[in-house]
Amino acid sequence: MAFWTDEQMRSIDKMLNPRSIAVVGASTKSGGYGGRLFDAVLKAKDRVRIYPVNPNYPEIKGLKSYASISDLPEAPDLVGVVVPYDKVLDVLQESHRKGAGSAVVISAGFAERGVESRLELQKKVGAFARESGLRIAGPNCLGLANVKDDIWPTASSRTLGGLTGPIGLVCQSGATAFGPFLLRAVDSGIGLSYIISTGNETDLDFSDFARYLLDDPDTRVIAGFVEGFKDVRKFIALAQMAIERGKPIVLIKIGRSESGARAARSHTAALTGEDALYDAIFKQYGVVRVQDYDDLLETAHLLAHQRKPKKAGISVVSHSGGISSLTADMCGLAGLDLPALSDKARDGINAVVKEFGWASNPADVTGFSRSEQFPDIMRYMIDEPEVGTLVVASAGAGSQPEQVIALRDSTDKNVAYFWTASRGDKGPLAKLKAANIPLFYTPAKLAGGLRSLLDYHARRDMRLASGKVVMTAPSTDQQQMIDRVQALGRPTLSESESKQVLGAWGIAGTREIVAQSAQAAVDAAQRLGYPVALKVDSPDILHKSEAGVVRLNLKTPQEVEQAYAEVMANAARYAPNAAISGALVQEMIAGGVEMIVGISYDPQLGPMLLFGSGGVMVEVFNDVTHRHCPITRAEAQEMIGEVKGSKLLQGFRGKPAADVEALADTLVRVSHLAVHLEGKLAELDINPLMVMPAGQGVKAADALMVLQK
Amino acid sequence: MAFWTDEQMRSIDKMLNPRSIAVVGASTKSGGYGGRLFDAVLKAKDRVRIYPVNPNYPEIKGLKSYASISDLPEAPDLVGVVVPYDKVLDVLQESHRKGAGSAVVISAGFAERGVESRLELQKKVGAFARESGLRIAGPNCLGLANVKDDIWPTASSRTLGGLTGPIGLVCQSGATAFGPFLLRAVDSGIGLSYIISTGNETDLDFSDFARYLLDDPDTRVIAGFVEGFKDVRKFIALAQMAIERGKPIVLIKIGRSESGARAARSHTAALTGEDALYDAIFKQYGVVRVQDYDDLLETAHLLAHQRKPKKAGISVVSHSGGISSLTADMCGLAGLDLPALSDKARDGINAVVKEFGWASNPADVTGFSRSEQFPDIMRYMIDEPEVGTLVVASAGAGSQPEQVIALRDSTDKNVAYFWTASRGDKGPLAKLKAANIPLFYTPAKLAGGLRSLLDYHARRDMRLASGKVVMTAPSTDQQQMIDRVQALGRPTLSESESKQVLGAWGIAGTREIVAQSAQAAVDAAQRLGYPVALKVDSPDILHKSEAGVVRLNLKTPQEVEQAYAEVMANAARYAPNAAISGALVQEMIAGGVEMIVGISYDPQLGPMLLFGSGGVMVEVFNDVTHRHCPITRAEAQEMIGEVKGSKLLQGFRGKPAADVEALADTLVRVSHLAVHLEGKLAELDINPLMVMPAGQGVKAADALMVLQK
Repeated sequence: MAFWTDEQMRSIDKMLNPRSIAVVGASTKSGGYGGRLFDAVLKAKDRVRIYPVNPNYPEIKGLKSYASISDLPEAPDLVGVVVPYDKVLDVLQESHRKGAGSAVVISAGFAERGVESRLELQKKVGAFARESGLRIAGPNCLGLANVKDDIWPTASSRTLGGLTGPIGLVCQSGATAFGPFLLRAVDSGIGLSYIISTGNETDLDFSDFARYLLDDPDTRVIAGFVEGFKDVRKFIALAQMAIERGKPIVLIKIGRSESGARAARSHTAALTGEDALYDAIFKQYGVVRVQDYDDLLETAHLLAHQRKPKKAGISVVSHSGGISSLTADMCGLAGLDLPALSDKARDGINAVVKEFGWASNPADVTGFSRSEQFPDIMRYMIDEPEVGTLVVASAGAGSQPEQVIALRDSTDKNVAYFWTASRGDKGPLAKLKAANIPLFYTPAKLAGGLRSLLDYHARRDMRLASGKVVMTAPSTDQQQMIDRVQALGRPTLSESESKQVLGAWGIAGTREIVAQSAQAAVDAAQRLGYPVALKVDSPDILHKSEAGVVRLNLKTPQEVEQAYAEVMANAARYAPNAAISGALVQEMIAGGVEMIVGISYDPQLGPMLLFGSGGVMVEVFNDVTHRHCPITRAEAQEMIGEVKGSKLLQGFRGKPAADVEALADTLVRVSHLAVHLEGKLAELDINPLMVMPAGQGVKAADALMVLQK
Repeated sequence: MAFWTDEQMRSIDKMLNPRSIAVVGASTKSGGYGGRLFDAVLKAKDRVRIYPVNPNYPEIKGLKSYASISDLPEAPDLVGVVVPYDKVLDVLQESHRKGAGSAVVISAGFAERGVESRLELQKKVGAFARESGLRIAGPNCLGLANVKDDIWPTASSRTLGGLTGPIGLVCQSGATAFGPFLLRAVDSGIGLSYIISTGNETDLDFSDFARYLLDDPDTRVIAGFVEGFKDVRKFIALAQMAIERGKPIVLIKIGRSESGARAARSHTAALTGEDALYDAIFKQYGVVRVQDYDDLLETAHLLAHQRKPKKAGISVVSHSGGISSLTADMCGLAGLDLPALSDKARDGINAVVKEFGWASNPADVTGFSRSEQFPDIMRYMIDEPEVGTLVVASAGAGSQPEQVIALRDSTDKNVAYFWTASRGDKGPLAKLKAANIPLFYTPAKLAGGLRSLLDYHARRDMRLASGKVVMTAPSTDQQQMIDRVQALGRPTLSESESKQVLGAWGIAGTREIVAQSAQAAVDAAQRLGYPVALKVDSPDILHKSEAGVVRLNLKTPQEVEQAYAEVMANAARYAPNAAISGALVQEMIAGGVEMIVGISYDPQLGPMLLFGSGGVMVEVFNDVTHRHCPITRAEAQEMIGEVKGSKLLQGFRGKPAADVEALADTLVRVSHLAVHLEGKLAELDINPLMVMPAGQGVKAADALMVLQK
């Protein structure tokens, strides 16, 4: 799918790198949005042609003021719009006629008011932008900043220059972009390429700007703050491109909790989906999700300034045993590995510190952290064969900052710094910041950042190795099955129908026969071999256990006969009007492990695959994992690894190991089925899927399909 | 148990509030420890009598230097010791003869060297301190600070005065106490009463100093950094006193991960136990565990400056929708409740903000956050009936700081501030700090802090309501059982023996009979009623399933006979030398829920109770919770609530609700058994404990006791 056009990217380019800016609603008063926007762009007047547009003034702050866009001497690259909401469309139309390149709509009063008419107006504005090709940010945004060229078309009063760097920040909330993010970036000496606030996103949204930044050579990491995605499919396409190119996306996404989701809904027009599914998608496509401003900035900075680690191991050196303990503890909690020191490193460090320190990983080297021998110590720690990253946990005494920077410049491994002294330090800390050493201020955030870096590259390697999922079109059999399902005109399929559909995608069910009489049931049992299960087969009875229409482990013809009579009577009582195709006589399966495989279709995210511990355990332990469909085989294996109940597949308590290969195949197949049946299927539940001993495959013991209405 | 004496507290009092300080090893050189300690105490010379002790100088920095402690004109309250390790004991002995009150031993070279002889020397020093009554901090510590009176007997170069407050900080790591903690406290404007570094703790340890601070009127919260407790039982006694008195303990405890535990072991002489057990103890006794320096300081500050919340609800107001969303999201993730606004509040706020804002919880009040009407908005939000705490998430524009402080001063509810601008702000942020408004800088830490406050008070209420556990001595029956167990002289008990022990504590087992022949087994089955289970009963076969000596669901005399023969044969094959008391013929239990109850004895923590999902699920899901024994009934109920598998007790999928009352009783009884058998029992496993339908009690279906060697 083509989510983006070249024309759109050119419009964004003019917006972010304008050579001329018109401000409609410019004012001499600095208090309002118009005045602030004009003041902000004016700072770039030596590099960018600035045109105030306001019929009420002959000139504003030394520049000739124009009565309208039409009067401008040129078509501006960017129009900043600060007019009442009901004038916005007029201004955009006039700007389009003039040939303007793009617009930033600061004006509020649209969908955020929660009034239908304003939402309609906003949609009109969006439609006009797309049709005309005059693409817009906003409305209800705070504008943007081209930090690297020091051009700030923003209505924020905060326009701090000088902090150029490789992080492109895209934020739905303008007050967040130009508030905590900008201020904390300055606090931490973290440089940005662009700051973009997208507001109500009636036209360009987070993914569009991020797509532009993917091509931008000055941006190495995309950092985002998203309350809700306008189009999750577009975001997924973006994330796939981003990980292929090796440009990480680091994200805060609201919706961790019901309170947050509620707040986001009331604030923007975007919907917030179920959080676990978002987590699954982020993981799947290598998007780094973080929790707060510091995380976003520090992690983005780390990703921008560190290579792919050569090894997963971390070594930690500190001037303090207490500090090194806590650092190691938090690293361990994040699942990071601190390999024990080799003899070489231990002896080497001991030769330096003698008895005044502890040569281990983490190392406590006491006052030697501010000695001339500290580079030797660091070199021992970073040269360890299993170490990819050295962490210095210290306070920068002596010439430590210079030593750390020199090491970073002379190694192909990574160096990070956990700063233990005052955050406001203007001495050594400032040196480390200026050299873009990745810095953290608490051990948990350090550990979280390093974890994200490793996970990102592991995910990327997996993506590059397994390649894109090649989805084939449905086979003839599958297509016939799809047509049959559609022709049914029923909301649900019976168990046997559901299993027939699964069969067309190569997913085996239990051997089973539908019987329309007690005698037929006995005959079926004879053919299948005892013991058997017997269930009513009906698309209208979904909760069979509750309805009392399941009998298990029937060992004789008498038992089958009796079971037939009972379940039919129960079915008639439970659902007198149910369509019943007969009794499903089924082989009893012994020796399998019960898992669950399912499909759901999220209105925004599309087809999602679920895998987990089956049977009763689903509801008690909720031991499940999700992926967006389709999945690769590597992803199937990963899903299996994520579920605690998969321990039962590994030959638990003397049982034979289960057929994990067949299970992985099945997950891939179900994910393809999910794509093929999108728009038709609403839900699929295979519970339990019996995973048989290795070599014996899997069998769907029960299955339920619900179709779209 | 009396862990503390008045004499000991008096010695600590002299150490922390000295009127005279001698520095043995004082020096004119400021670089070394002796020089630094002397320089530091010298700053208090107008309030404290200072005596340098060093035979090599006639005077040091204007003060007469004494050749030895004996030469001093008075017995000093505190002796600072900075001499080579092998002179420390001499100095302490001389100080004791002189009548000194206490000592801080900065000197290193003891247990931390990892050499046996130094450990021995350290033990000698500790023994001398306890015997003589001249109590000491250290060795290998950095000293301490009486912040409130600005007296700094520390060898750290950081002696920043002026930050007096109600938090007493006790740290094993001196570099941590006078490094990140002190510096970050200054950064955040968080005031301390004392800073105490305890070093190797050969005499006074964390719990001793914390015990002193419990009585100190200037300390409202005790903040600690602990790598390992010297005596966990003492710490538990401390925690129990602390929660009764309402003086919170906030703690970083190393050992979250193997890396951290390893580092802590290499650093101090203290052992680090299993972390989940520590978590259980902290929770049980109301100790607030946090992860890093900022957490510790911010949470301690919050606890010191906020009352018990009147209600659990939180309301959030911000100038930004994006910021309020993220704040609400993190609060929700921490399980905090943001009650929806009442009509009164919504209408009231809407009357102020008109359409320029969003009156909800969280509220986005745009520019009205810096208006004269902001106090009205805050008042609506905090006056909500279910709200106990108002969070302002903003950047302090206009007169907001004064408004927030005024609100705090005029309400009996709580006010906290999530600061969204620069951490280095010297304007509004400084005002909020000076007024001791609890401040947070990231939404996750805000949420974590508020969560801790609520949890602390809930725990305290529960403790005060349920009172202390009254442990009775064992009954005559129980005492006889204890004697019998001890007399056995075996490392393990058989299943039937284990169940007899349980019976003496009122814990029912399955009905069962030990049979020594096939015929006796059939007779037993007849008496119990079919179906039955049959197992070999032996103290030497612990893993019965593996040994193939269990047969379930036997329905006929023939099956019993056959089973008897099989399991006896298997037992003989599996463990030819096993002592076998016979076959245990047992009723089969239907309709119960399988749980596990266990006891273990941690070498440091003592008797720990385990409860969780039973059967196979233990190993797969590890769905368990722990408590220190004995427990109250309220704690038993809490344990049940913490286990996911307890859903099965609530009448899951149409089954009857289980006997949760009997289960709670059983947990309490097992916890008493654990206390009564301490020193004799090593482990108890009841798996499964069958919880029967309500009114029918519980039954231990299998039980295993392992005795202490």
